[in-house]
Amino acid sequence: MAHYTAPLRDMQFVLYELLDVEKEFAQIPQHAETNRELMDQVLEEGARFTTEVILPLNAVGDLNGCHLDNATHEVTTPKGFKQAYAKYVEGGWAALACDTEFGGQGLPVVLNSAVYEMLNACNQAWAMYPGLTHGAYECLQAHGLPEQRKLYLPKLTSGEWTGTMCLTESHCGTDLGMLRTKATPQADGSYKIDGNKIFISSGEHDMAENIVHLVLARLPDSPPGSKGISLFIVPKFIPNADASLGARNSVYCSGLEHKMGIHGNATAQISLDGATGWLLGQPNKGLQAMFVMMNAARLGVGMQSLGLTEAAYQQARTYAKDRIQSRSLSGPKAPDKPADPIIVHPDVRRMLLTARAWAEGARALTYFIATQIDVELGHSDEDARKDAADMVALLTPIVKAFITDNGWQATSEAMQVFGGHGFIWETGIEQYVRDARINMIYEGTNTIQSLDLLGRKVLSDNGAKLKKFGKLVQQFVEENGTDESLAEFVTPLADLGEKLTKLTMEVGMKAFQNQDEVGAAAVPYLRIAGHLVYAYLFARMAKISLAKQDSGDDFYKAKLATVRFYFSRLLPETAMLIRQARAGVAVLQQMPEELF
Amino acid sequence: MAHYTAPLRDMQFVLYELLDVEKEFAQIPQHAETNRELMDQVLEEGARFTTEVILPLNAVGDLNGCHLDNATHEVTTPKGFKQAYAKYVEGGWAALACDTEFGGQGLPVVLNSAVYEMLNACNQAWAMYPGLTHGAYECLQAHGLPEQRKLYLPKLTSGEWTGTMCLTESHCGTDLGMLRTKATPQADGSYKIDGNKIFISSGEHDMAENIVHLVLARLPDSPPGSKGISLFIVPKFIPNADASLGARNSVYCSGLEHKMGIHGNATAQISLDGATGWLLGQPNKGLQAMFVMMNAARLGVGMQSLGLTEAAYQQARTYAKDRIQSRSLSGPKAPDKPADPIIVHPDVRRMLLTARAWAEGARALTYFIATQIDVELGHSDEDARKDAADMVALLTPIVKAFITDNGWQATSEAMQVFGGHGFIWETGIEQYVRDARINMIYEGTNTIQSLDLLGRKVLSDNGAKLKKFGKLVQQFVEENGTDESLAEFVTPLADLGEKLTKLTMEVGMKAFQNQDEVGAAAVPYLRIAGHLVYAYLFARMAKISLAKQDSGDDFYKAKLATVRFYFSRLLPETAMLIRQARAGVAVLQQMPEELF
Repeated sequence: MAHYTAPLRDMQFVLYELLDVEKEFAQIPQHAETNRELMDQVLEEGARFTTEVILPLNAVGDLNGCHLDNATHEVTTPKGFKQAYAKYVEGGWAALACDTEFGGQGLPVVLNSAVYEMLNACNQAWAMYPGLTHGAYECLQAHGLPEQRKLYLPKLTSGEWTGTMCLTESHCGTDLGMLRTKATPQADGSYKIDGNKIFISSGEHDMAENIVHLVLARLPDSPPGSKGISLFIVPKFIPNADASLGARNSVYCSGLEHKMGIHGNATAQISLDGATGWLLGQPNKGLQAMFVMMNAARLGVGMQSLGLTEAAYQQARTYAKDRIQSRSLSGPKAPDKPADPIIVHPDVRRMLLTARAWAEGARALTYFIATQIDVELGHSDEDARKDAADMVALLTPIVKAFITDNGWQATSEAMQVFGGHGFIWETGIEQYVRDARINMIYEGTNTIQSLDLLGRKVLSDNGAKLKKFGKLVQQFVEENGTDESLAEFVTPLADLGEKLTKLTMEVGMKAFQNQDEVGAAAVPYLRIAGHLVYAYLFARMAKISLAKQDSGDDFYKAKLATVRFYFSRLLPETAMLIRQARAGVAVLQQMPEELF
Repeated sequence: MAHYTAPLRDMQFVLYELLDVEKEFAQIPQHAETNRELMDQVLEEGARFTTEVILPLNAVGDLNGCHLDNATHEVTTPKGFKQAYAKYVEGGWAALACDTEFGGQGLPVVLNSAVYEMLNACNQAWAMYPGLTHGAYECLQAHGLPEQRKLYLPKLTSGEWTGTMCLTESHCGTDLGMLRTKATPQADGSYKIDGNKIFISSGEHDMAENIVHLVLARLPDSPPGSKGISLFIVPKFIPNADASLGARNSVYCSGLEHKMGIHGNATAQISLDGATGWLLGQPNKGLQAMFVMMNAARLGVGMQSLGLTEAAYQQARTYAKDRIQSRSLSGPKAPDKPADPIIVHPDVRRMLLTARAWAEGARALTYFIATQIDVELGHSDEDARKDAADMVALLTPIVKAFITDNGWQATSEAMQVFGGHGFIWETGIEQYVRDARINMIYEGTNTIQSLDLLGRKVLSDNGAKLKKFGKLVQQFVEENGTDESLAEFVTPLADLGEKLTKLTMEVGMKAFQNQDEVGAAAVPYLRIAGHLVYAYLFARMAKISLAKQDSGDDFYKAKLATVRFYFSRLLPETAMLIRQARAGVAVLQQMPEELF
């Protein structure tokens, strides 16, 4: 069955050698004392906890799923989930990146992200219970009144309570402006909430004593559409002032979904039948408030596919070394055996290296963004905070869509390495493919991410945020353009940067004539931008590794091999994508609707 | 739940307008009287049968799967499968393309293929029971002794008995040379077979009274490796001379696999415990004999993904017209509704058109190949038969790998159209994705197909077979190169043809130095060749449709829209693939095995 070794060496390479996070932390007062020793300790403990406690529950969660008792509306999670969660809370993992004011450890977001990579690699379905909790924590932290924060945040920090985000209704997912759940004001300042939500991840379970639902609903007389939506706190048990549990609220699980993957997570239908809730943030500004949680969730989804990609890679790598089948075309490589291990075959290596490069690229990008969030939240200089916020805004849709599309490809390639055995449940690899599929859909489909990037993040400010990233690329190209040993990386990076600039202008001009040109170009555009980001990060990693390739540490040799594979076999996708992005909307609109 | 309308109009377009099969049949004595009226009747009956009888069993088969009784070794198929199979036999469907000598209807392979498209679209798992039977029929027809043919073929023709191919063992799939199952000669001319097989599709079931296993095994003193493998007929019940059932043979199902998809098909572990078998074909020539069945099966797998692609497209198309969500970026298109149907959004159209173009391309290719098989089997001219055989040999790996890779992409895009609802089992779309995944693996993984194409079919005869296909392209380009209205299709087709020729020479030269260059280039090479074939077929379809676009039949308008989409959004993949195919093996070999 599944095995996993946390890729600590590569995590440390990204944190300390690529991103030099200690230097960044020196400018962030609350993290000034977070040093490498402390981080290593957390990473090593995290590796032990996730591998020993969470990983063994991955297959059983997939096999058994969650069960709803229709009489009590209570949900039982797969065997072992609850006990593992108790250990998670006991170990203080939930509190890692929470504010010390509420009992948290106040550690950097990037360190928490690294722990989440490991959690996701071991068991995405399980990791979604604490993952959504942390999102709810952030939303309450940003928008809660002081008394709301005081009441809820310590329990979310400890993990004793978990959180959810209740947005979707059966008739509206992407278009939340159509939602119908109603909130009726009560004399005591609370609201009665009535409506039905679907697709609520971690929506009901037996792992924590209370669940804090953050629910989107309409106030009476609210404007129609997305400008009339408010956000409410709807706890499963209504807490007393001392956070002890009071009455059971009338928010119930009315059904669980049967899904392609993430069976261990309870995807709940939630009925609110006059449930008591409290307004969170401003009336009619609920969508904006929820976006705090959604942006965190989008980064979280990228981390999920990073975890699955790494885990699937590791399974395939082990199999490719062990499985003997056929001889190398260039002559036997293991003449003592009846056949060669399949890792000698070039296309098996291509599949493995594809998964590996997507994992290493995703790790570099997500840790980079997480560090930028730390800068945004706490840097001593306001301009630095603003720049970081822009970088996070720009790259969030890329983290979500590019990494999850690649994760789908990577897990499928890893499965292919197993041949027929890959299709069998007991082998343990096809679950990664099924689990990875949801990441392209939820928290805004990847099409929505691409529209967010091209429409909202790039074109709406005339490329200002994109130019900020472009400057990083330009600076690297200028600093290293004359170094012949780096030309194999710098030349295609500079070339792609120029092409993306031109493409952006071209699509922008076309969009003046017809806004649908944005929709026609957005998906390939996002992948081109994703490749630019990866090419930049891989080129930086190559520079570091070239300088240390004779250090005796084989890690740098392996890194260079992966980077070279990326540039020669994955980056060429941009040649296709640019043609697709330039193809225009006319060819998509030529077919009349009735002829589909 | 799932719906399906057999795409009869497009099937007829391909058969009668693109391929002009009646003209081909005129040169094939046994099909000289197969006219359009007869074919239309079969297609319409086939559409009715598959949609009414087979389609309703697709979801239930996925949900319930097959069950093995460990005491009796008997397998129960999902509810309704057996009854549907009885109707299939009763309707004479099994006999469609079988020889009249054995009770068949002697109709063309291409007509049978069209029926299989519909069967697969309705229920791939079910269709595999008759599908493998027909493969066994062909193998026995080609290699059986007269008395073997007389005994087995009538029962396989009627469908009263079904067939299997027993190749894989747990330690060998791709590399059958390592197989261990033993055949011991008996005094009466039969053999005792001992061994264990896995992954036997339709390996045991309750749908037919007898199962004819074709089993690969080793004779005593046979040479090691693939040159020491023989093929045996091992019936579940040993038939008497009059084909009545005799003793139960000791060939048993010892387990069923739990799989990602095709749950309705019994993927069996088969134990042969001194089972009685009879040699089929020559001793130690079993692999060659089995290749008759395998080649048929490879075309069959392409047909499976064609069916799934069409079916998934139809589900997504219906949803995209019904589901309202968000407004078009260029202004409301359904102002009377609270939101626009999602088919107005350019990227939803891209996903739909991707699936549609892959379906229409696959239909053209598979019907083309099937017609070539009819020519190969029965044309009055020997050279015509030889040319057709070369075409079938060349294109078989493309049918298998290109169509199934595209089917995986198409079903996944179709699922994405559904947003969150796509991930839910009850929606019925995610099953197509899971079912489609096996098609990239079995009957030779898609990597094996690519090695077969580039190594065995192209380089080993210095491109002779490829040149035969190239001549078709060249001829079309010469005939239509001066027609400006066709330039949008002819120019990229001619360009790709030239590039493939150059690439073939380049890889061939590199392979002289290092055979592993073939393995490094083969997968992208196959997809480039696949695109050349599709570009050729789509260009021909465009020519026909342009000539008839003012006929008042909207079919031609829709065809042109699909073809233009293919050329502008799918064909550009070749820009990536050519770079990948040229990247060479060094970048794949740079990573030492121990550093993976």
